Amino acid sequence: MTPAGIIAALTDLLGLGAVLPGIGDITKYTVDWRKRFHGDAICVVLPKTTSDVAQIMRFCWEHRVPVIPQGGNTGLRGAATPFPGSGAVIVSMERMNAIRSLDRASSAITVDAGCVLQNVQQAAADAGLLFPLEIGSQGSCQIGGNIATNAGGLTVMRYGTIRDLMLGIEVVLPDGRVMNMLRSLRKVSAGYDLKHLFVSSEGTLGIITAATLKLFPRPRSSATAWIALPNLVQAVPLLERLRDHFQERLTSYEVLSRGQLELVFKHCANTRDPLDGGYPWAALIQIADASSDDGLQNELEEVLATALEDGLAENAVIAANSRQTQDLWYLREGLSMANVAEGRHVSHDTIVPIAALPEFIERVTERVLAAYPDAVPISSGHVGDGNIHAGFMFQHARFPTPDDYEQVAREINAIVFDVTYALGGGFCAEHGIGIPYREPLSKFADPVELAIMKSVKTNLDNRGIMNPGKIFLPPNRQGERHDHP
Amino acid sequence: MTPAGIIAALTDLLGLGAVLPGIGDITKYTVDWRKRFHGDAICVVLPKTTSDVAQIMRFCWEHRVPVIPQGGNTGLRGAATPFPGSGAVIVSMERMNAIRSLDRASSAITVDAGCVLQNVQQAAADAGLLFPLEIGSQGSCQIGGNIATNAGGLTVMRYGTIRDLMLGIEVVLPDGRVMNMLRSLRKVSAGYDLKHLFVSSEGTLGIITAATLKLFPRPRSSATAWIALPNLVQAVPLLERLRDHFQERLTSYEVLSRGQLELVFKHCANTRDPLDGGYPWAALIQIADASSDDGLQNELEEVLATALEDGLAENAVIAANSRQTQDLWYLREGLSMANVAEGRHVSHDTIVPIAALPEFIERVTERVLAAYPDAVPISSGHVGDGNIHAGFMFQHARFPTPDDYEQVAREINAIVFDVTYALGGGFCAEHGIGIPYREPLSKFADPVELAIMKSVKTNLDNRGIMNPGKIFLPPNRQGERHDHP
Repeated sequence: MTPAGIIAALTDLLGLGAVLPGIGDITKYTVDWRKRFHGDAICVVLPKTTSDVAQIMRFCWEHRVPVIPQGGNTGLRGAATPFPGSGAVIVSMERMNAIRSLDRASSAITVDAGCVLQNVQQAAADAGLLFPLEIGSQGSCQIGGNIATNAGGLTVMRYGTIRDLMLGIEVVLPDGRVMNMLRSLRKVSAGYDLKHLFVSSEGTLGIITAATLKLFPRPRSSATAWIALPNLVQAVPLLERLRDHFQERLTSYEVLSRGQLELVFKHCANTRDPLDGGYPWAALIQIADASSDDGLQNELEEVLATALEDGLAENAVIAANSRQTQDLWYLREGLSMANVAEGRHVSHDTIVPIAALPEFIERVTERVLAAYPDAVPISSGHVGDGNIHAGFMFQHARFPTPDDYEQVAREINAIVFDVTYALGGGFCAEHGIGIPYREPLSKFADPVELAIMKSVKTNLDNRGIMNPGKIFLPPNRQGERHDHP
Repeated sequence: MTPAGIIAALTDLLGLGAVLPGIGDITKYTVDWRKRFHGDAICVVLPKTTSDVAQIMRFCWEHRVPVIPQGGNTGLRGAATPFPGSGAVIVSMERMNAIRSLDRASSAITVDAGCVLQNVQQAAADAGLLFPLEIGSQGSCQIGGNIATNAGGLTVMRYGTIRDLMLGIEVVLPDGRVMNMLRSLRKVSAGYDLKHLFVSSEGTLGIITAATLKLFPRPRSSATAWIALPNLVQAVPLLERLRDHFQERLTSYEVLSRGQLELVFKHCANTRDPLDGGYPWAALIQIADASSDDGLQNELEEVLATALEDGLAENAVIAANSRQTQDLWYLREGLSMANVAEGRHVSHDTIVPIAALPEFIERVTERVLAAYPDAVPISSGHVGDGNIHAGFMFQHARFPTPDDYEQVAREINAIVFDVTYALGGGFCAEHGIGIPYREPLSKFADPVELAIMKSVKTNLDNRGIMNPGKIFLPPNRQGERHDHP
């Protein structure tokens, strides 16, 4: 079928405003937000209902047209971006954005997959409840995309990733069949729980159209501290100390390296170091409690005082009010912007057993600096769950061509992956595989696990129309670099 | 291959003591603990290592010998019991019972699948940590079986089911390949997370040989209360009240009906009603807190006093010491024994949205009593997660033959399933499908979901040797009653 024929047929099915032809400006959908991946598509379709999505998929299945599901287009791995010459249809979920229902007694909310995360947080808050997922892109990312990448973020140590927050799901399969598993039930043992297949499937098994999510009581008080660490080694016993004392009340435990912090101070307006001394690592922690009294800050102060005495930390400051709390969190949230402003960097999404975090950073840094003495180590991470974003910053001038950057990135990646696997870790904690990590997946995954993953893909999509070329290297291109510059 | 040939070949592979021929007494393995399901097998094999299991599976795959994985044989749905004339090999995991490792910083423990749950709880406790799964059979059930049925139990509202507690898994596939996903990582977004396929798979997709499980800090204080409810309707606002106040500290919220309670008092030695008044429903709740001070009991007392004033409860007593706490919990734990001692009962494993619990019990009871005026309603449940075990007790003399019982059970089941689905619920919260619930699954599951489940089974086990006839009705026996009397 010709592109014009596909556009005409989809317009017939969905109406005129629902199809944006690829000959117009659809770069909003064909380029990722970091502008690393560029592609093109026959058209973008904008379904309003699950039934619309089913119609689109039936058509594309019949005519073997590749389909790329897209949420807020905020992903970091290009999973939602078409390849150049893809001949694909992008299905943008932006018009399926209704809160379908909220059940207070069951603490559950059912939403369209195109709901922006922040709107789900708000709907929960309006009911006096909490939807705890917090990630940097929450103002524009969508629930469907969060599920398709198993989004984690800042509150994983207390609430888990979105996989743990999901009670039910509705999916349109590649052949257009609708699988309705929108349950608000807290436990089920009735055969295979298929919803988990679609978590972190990056649009390769079907289109998520709705989800039922867990809600939680809203904590009534919280305390936030900025802690100067003498080194990353002490971050681990400090975590254990805090976790032993505060237990599940410890909601976040983030760290930033000195190199990362300096870039934040340099590029983010009105920021300054909360503590003196040029300490090499900072920890940002948050405690949240069910009780509304203000004993929490005192409790945190006492625990931190003992930790300082015991040499687990050099210094610490507790936010005295919500303004100070926001200012501290802004130092964490500003880092993406600061890094883009500074230059070109290579970053990672590594997760290792928590005790191995210091060794991971030490070994990676040593090897990368030996190979690239001009690299500036910038790292940040979620220590509470073992996920560290190890990064290395370079000046723009270092890379005259995109290929120069890609070559350095590949060599640094090889070092990072090598150390990661030596330490029993994984290289994709929360950002997914998408395009750039297909080769490492094919190299590092357990071969049996990878074979079963591929058989699951074939089982659900034997025509290979769902987001082809993502997660897995195309069989006929094994080993070929199929990366966007 | 003849049974004798199979026994000889497996003995060659594993050694003499590792194979128990079916001509000897193997009823410990061929009859379930409630003695509802009876079958026979060629032999029982007792592997010691994952490599043993792989050898068994490679042999059985090659020779198309059916395999039935078995843990502690404590299941309620016959999933681990062979059919009569099964021609199957039972793989008992009882000798694979090592704690492989414990990682304090990552709060993770890796254990053989044959570890008894209680031993895992103890290993965690020895390290000053908590493995929170608590179920009635914890002294004999095994982790592999817990995963294969997605065990829930008494602490789901705080800690989730074992699915939520599982970080990694090791599985031997039907063809003998070992899939090693034993990770202690807290989040992963690297393609499809296949471990979830094996949760609640009831031995139909492979043999779970090991798992990495989450550990938690041990709460330092707890408070337990027994509450007289004026009716089940008030159980829901009382739950909301307690959850709003105590948030995640509310660990358990169980209910028992008057009919159920009376049987406990009648059959369990040294039990008595903690409160007067013949109230129709009792709630047993537990709060657990990170802090070690004893303010928790006072806090609970205040919250319950207000709930009493507001008519959410009639009366309440808080356990004053650990002896009283044990006594209260014994009233909950004794119910299985009491029911077996009293007569024959039909029970269920229903889960509905929490707000629908009272209506579910009301509608089911009315319809069952209209059909069977001699039925005594006995119900208990985990209100905190919406799972209620609705039961109806009869005297033994009511059923001269097993078929008489099965007929009544089928008719009561039909009523319960009808109401369950009308209310958006499910009929298998934590006990699984096994043999008796295959028909309801085929009838009530979303047809697309069921079709995909079956395709997953075929994809992993196209020779159909893994626990055949469990979860799904055999294709050639569709509709036939294939139940053990």
